[in-house]
Amino acid sequence: MKCSTCQAKAAIEIRRHNAAFCGPCFTAHLERQVQRTIESERMLDPGERVLVAVSGGKDSLCLWEILRRQGYETTGLHLDLGIDGYSPEGRKKTEAYAELHGLPLQVIEVRQETGFTIPELADRTRRPPCSGCGLSKRYLMNRAALEGGFPVLATGHNLDDVAAILLGNVLRWQVEQLSRMTPVRPASHPRLVKTVKPLIRVTEREAVAYCLLRVLDYHEDECPNAAGATLLLYKDIVNQIEAVSAGTKQAFYQEFVKKLQPRLAAGETFTLRECEVCGQATTREVCAYCRMMERARQKTVQRGRVTRTVLEVPPA
Amino acid sequence: MKCSTCQAKAAIEIRRHNAAFCGPCFTAHLERQVQRTIESERMLDPGERVLVAVSGGKDSLCLWEILRRQGYETTGLHLDLGIDGYSPEGRKKTEAYAELHGLPLQVIEVRQETGFTIPELADRTRRPPCSGCGLSKRYLMNRAALEGGFPVLATGHNLDDVAAILLGNVLRWQVEQLSRMTPVRPASHPRLVKTVKPLIRVTEREAVAYCLLRVLDYHEDECPNAAGATLLLYKDIVNQIEAVSAGTKQAFYQEFVKKLQPRLAAGETFTLRECEVCGQATTREVCAYCRMMERARQKTVQRGRVTRTVLEVPPA
Repeated sequence: MKCSTCQAKAAIEIRRHNAAFCGPCFTAHLERQVQRTIESERMLDPGERVLVAVSGGKDSLCLWEILRRQGYETTGLHLDLGIDGYSPEGRKKTEAYAELHGLPLQVIEVRQETGFTIPELADRTRRPPCSGCGLSKRYLMNRAALEGGFPVLATGHNLDDVAAILLGNVLRWQVEQLSRMTPVRPASHPRLVKTVKPLIRVTEREAVAYCLLRVLDYHEDECPNAAGATLLLYKDIVNQIEAVSAGTKQAFYQEFVKKLQPRLAAGETFTLRECEVCGQATTREVCAYCRMMERARQKTVQRGRVTRTVLEVPPA
Repeated sequence: MKCSTCQAKAAIEIRRHNAAFCGPCFTAHLERQVQRTIESERMLDPGERVLVAVSGGKDSLCLWEILRRQGYETTGLHLDLGIDGYSPEGRKKTEAYAELHGLPLQVIEVRQETGFTIPELADRTRRPPCSGCGLSKRYLMNRAALEGGFPVLATGHNLDDVAAILLGNVLRWQVEQLSRMTPVRPASHPRLVKTVKPLIRVTEREAVAYCLLRVLDYHEDECPNAAGATLLLYKDIVNQIEAVSAGTKQAFYQEFVKKLQPRLAAGETFTLRECEVCGQATTREVCAYCRMMERARQKTVQRGRVTRTVLEVPPA
């Protein structure tokens, strides 16, 4: 198999594009594709300060590297989730990348910020870990972007991520969630920062190949909480279909954004206001993050009481 | 495991309903469920003459049996597709059922009606066999219902069928097809008969169990043309998700019908008129069926010419 660009020996085949590339042509192709996505979806303006969410995994390092190479003024944002045996490694890789390229990096320790690590939060709120983690990340990243005066936050969601999330929302027809599934989420309230997903046309496999070819030292482990998560099942299912019909994964998400999402968004009207506790944007009196945190704190107090009561019972 | 109704030993578990049934309670449950579907979706009026599409497989015989037991005035309609090694058996089973219960049955031989068997049609039009077959069946069944003066045509599409078709349409966001995916298709033109799918809440597995318990002699073979068809992949995929999360299959279709389909139908406006060739309802000048048949006939004529030309060339 030969490189579609330079006819050298190909290193990677991209079936859905009916193309193959050698190493150098592949990295150039991927960078061009991400830049085209950024331009066609009007994600970033030239010279705009971008806060990049970086876990230290393949997607976020691939994203930071491409934005850096394209000349965007980036600052990294790493959330240390406090997951034993997993979080330290991602933080180390992120810090190493920032140091190597002399890029600014902000690290937020979720435990210090909220009083709980992600596993503690899952335990106290009895939510699945991925649910509390996702909510915390969205909240803390938006707040960090606001406080840092960044007009835009970029995340490393790739095509496999958005296709799997779309499938999950479609299976139960979560219309509200579907109506928000766009490559760009505009700042629809003064307390919300615009968020963008420049990797929506890059698959997991392509992000890995890019990291290997650019020699980016990324954190390879999957989060231990994700094992058995339905999102992994949905990714697997989308890949089964892709194997039989190349291009379905990309068409599934892109056609959704083009044909369906606008119709759904037109039907969904909600008014955003400021959360009475924290002031962030919400549709309710108190935002989902503050409600979750309140439940987690109550549970901690209750447990404290139970312990004390047991201790106060005089021995029989 | 005990029967949820009578506490006898259960013969079948229905995980998505969190229930199990012995044989007699299961058949009663299934018949009640189909009757409830018919009533809640206003599929049939009591005493209405119903034309039932019967292939001789599990779904159509299950449907005919339930409608017969509920006292509907049914006539069977069997299309003999002319598929070697497959069609004769389905026809035999259908005729045997009709004879056993003294029910009227109309048999249409596709070859006699159109000049081609389904395999010949696929060969001449270069369409996938399932595509030409589906189009022919919908056309011929509608015409038979019109000519017989039936106000409604019932088909045996089960929950696995509609969920798999829905997944296929969703993966490419076929909005026009999606907007038509309702349990009842009203007679939106004088040349269209109302069609209904009373088994949309019955899975394949339940239809098989019903046939076994009611001792219905059905045609067990899968159509040879269906092997490798994407619909089978989609059925398998929906079942993988159902295995992890019971109830997803039913929610996927039902929530679609409730939440999405009305929004899509509101956006799709098309005017039906009579086909210039056959007079049936269509959005174009000539309907899809007549266009397909014209292509098949042209191909036949061309092949005849090619053969003659070859023969007329004098030997070198």
